[in-house]
Amino acid sequence: MAAEPKKIIIDTDPGIDDAMAIFLALRSPEVEVIGLTTIYGNVYTTLATRNALHLLEFAGRTDIPVAEGSHVTITFHIIIVSALVRKEVWFDSLWLLFSKDNLVLMDLVSTHGAANFVHGADGLGNQNFDPPKGKPVEQSAAAFLVEQAKLHPGKVTVVALGPLTNIALAIELDPEFCKNIGQIVLLGGAFSVNGNVNPAAEANIFGDPDAADIVFTCGADILAVGINVTHQVVLSDAERDKLRQSNGKFAQYLCKILEVYFSYHQEAYSMKGVYLHDPTALLAAVNPSLLTYTEGAVRVQTTGITRGLTLLYNKQKRFEEVTEWTDKPTVKVAVTVDAPTVVKLLMERLMES
Amino acid sequence: MAAEPKKIIIDTDPGIDDAMAIFLALRSPEVEVIGLTTIYGNVYTTLATRNALHLLEFAGRTDIPVAEGSHVTITFHIIIVSALVRKEVWFDSLWLLFSKDNLVLMDLVSTHGAANFVHGADGLGNQNFDPPKGKPVEQSAAAFLVEQAKLHPGKVTVVALGPLTNIALAIELDPEFCKNIGQIVLLGGAFSVNGNVNPAAEANIFGDPDAADIVFTCGADILAVGINVTHQVVLSDAERDKLRQSNGKFAQYLCKILEVYFSYHQEAYSMKGVYLHDPTALLAAVNPSLLTYTEGAVRVQTTGITRGLTLLYNKQKRFEEVTEWTDKPTVKVAVTVDAPTVVKLLMERLMES
Repeated sequence: MAAEPKKIIIDTDPGIDDAMAIFLALRSPEVEVIGLTTIYGNVYTTLATRNALHLLEFAGRTDIPVAEGSHVTITFHIIIVSALVRKEVWFDSLWLLFSKDNLVLMDLVSTHGAANFVHGADGLGNQNFDPPKGKPVEQSAAAFLVEQAKLHPGKVTVVALGPLTNIALAIELDPEFCKNIGQIVLLGGAFSVNGNVNPAAEANIFGDPDAADIVFTCGADILAVGINVTHQVVLSDAERDKLRQSNGKFAQYLCKILEVYFSYHQEAYSMKGVYLHDPTALLAAVNPSLLTYTEGAVRVQTTGITRGLTLLYNKQKRFEEVTEWTDKPTVKVAVTVDAPTVVKLLMERLMES
Repeated sequence: MAAEPKKIIIDTDPGIDDAMAIFLALRSPEVEVIGLTTIYGNVYTTLATRNALHLLEFAGRTDIPVAEGSHVTITFHIIIVSALVRKEVWFDSLWLLFSKDNLVLMDLVSTHGAANFVHGADGLGNQNFDPPKGKPVEQSAAAFLVEQAKLHPGKVTVVALGPLTNIALAIELDPEFCKNIGQIVLLGGAFSVNGNVNPAAEANIFGDPDAADIVFTCGADILAVGINVTHQVVLSDAERDKLRQSNGKFAQYLCKILEVYFSYHQEAYSMKGVYLHDPTALLAAVNPSLLTYTEGAVRVQTTGITRGLTLLYNKQKRFEEVTEWTDKPTVKVAVTVDAPTVVKLLMERLMES
């Protein structure tokens, strides 16, 4: 008898490589996608929700719920929450207040710095897809995460592909969340390498450094896959041609939206290929043995010129004095990846018709 | 005819490995030591000056002038300077005010965090050497650096073995300093590795992050040798035994003071050996071909939990937006070192009798 598939929730800001990761998850028998939660990042949150619903409808998987996430960073969230409710902090109801009544304002805030030039203005390669028919569930992303973790204690893996605001809000909402959640596999950080937003910071951590620091130090089972690893996993021009020649509907769809993503990589990195950030993180959740890891405390710089920088303490030195890393829970940080197998799995599964 | 020896000024906070570097410089025919300038770091500045004079007297080189440097970080300096003189900033005369009239206060400030457990309370392995007979010159370290650079334009190399306050003050004192100085070879930074004060910062940069950022971005010819490189250069237990058995007076002296330094490495790193930080930086100035380098803009984080972190932008990505690294002058950052040759040169030269 086959093992029960691993329940996963994908926290996502689709995004071209998010679309690849979501389709890959739906074609991976090892996992069961029990929900998508949305977040700003590649696009603003409202658009992320629309794209998440659209991708599930294209895949014929409208059975999977989509829960909309935060429109703003956790700091912004907490400042407004504190101002409004003083001592009683009802994150979830406040989420409703913000996300429903003030969408335009919130989306304006989070759009600042959205990566139009990376994923296209619509987040999906400027293809002008029809709007989705479905709607997100009433629950916020944070509430959905908390509920699912409680329903299946130790059994749910969150694959976080955007800024970590929703995960941090779930941690704030329920002190038991870190114990209830099985694992958090996150695409984020630039460990000992330059970032991709600026020389210091990787985009997802830069999107909400305070949330990231909350998540890294919360004590949950965390596996961070940074760009130091995902930059080893490239889908080449030639591989895209193979995808294009296949009959797979996912492959056909992706080849359309990938055009913009290839142009961006050509311009920013002078390469004829694209980094497979989100699919690599997804496959790390599906099959952890595709990567190797180190362990240590990770903290995030939240101010100054290196805002968003992730720093792993490798324990090689015993410091005389207490540091900001002392006694913090350790997390797993990916170091190497079996890139050929990741690309092979991605190709095979997306080319299935 | 042999090439004219390279004129060097060693900016130093002796310090056990500073003593090794100073002796090594005096035994290196490729360089001519034209002065020592002192700085807080391993010890407070007054003690650094005392130790610098002592080391030169032991070496029989009282012909080499010692110029005392700043007792406090550049930020502290500038705050007080501004408060006192408002618009007219006379760094050099103010240095006199601070260093002569308020030594106790200043040394108290800079002693905070001094590395007693690394180098001993006296900075030289708790050997209670007699106080030196000589005195520093009247000129401040910054003024001395400015003057020497002007006297021999393009010909003087500063080997900076402590926090970079004096160099930053020289830059503030004379806008031409960066052009006049030949090269600044500095021991500092932890490039893509953990620091040695805490997981983010290396000790010399942590000692004065603002000064370090001024130096890295000043436009001078700079070569940074970080602990990512000096941690590759270890003097082993066995090599110390060889030094001990030699007749060299420097070798004999160093074996005495090295005891404390070996104990510290045993405790902090569980190793039976010591890192040759300062001697490696010194030899990088003597013979640059012992190391390989990369080039790029380096900035220093000056606030928050990663205060003192050094970050090199390697130019692999073209960023869409202007970053804090954009258009900053590039510096050389050491990447690899021929460690066996560094150790061999050190041993040979220190064992000469």
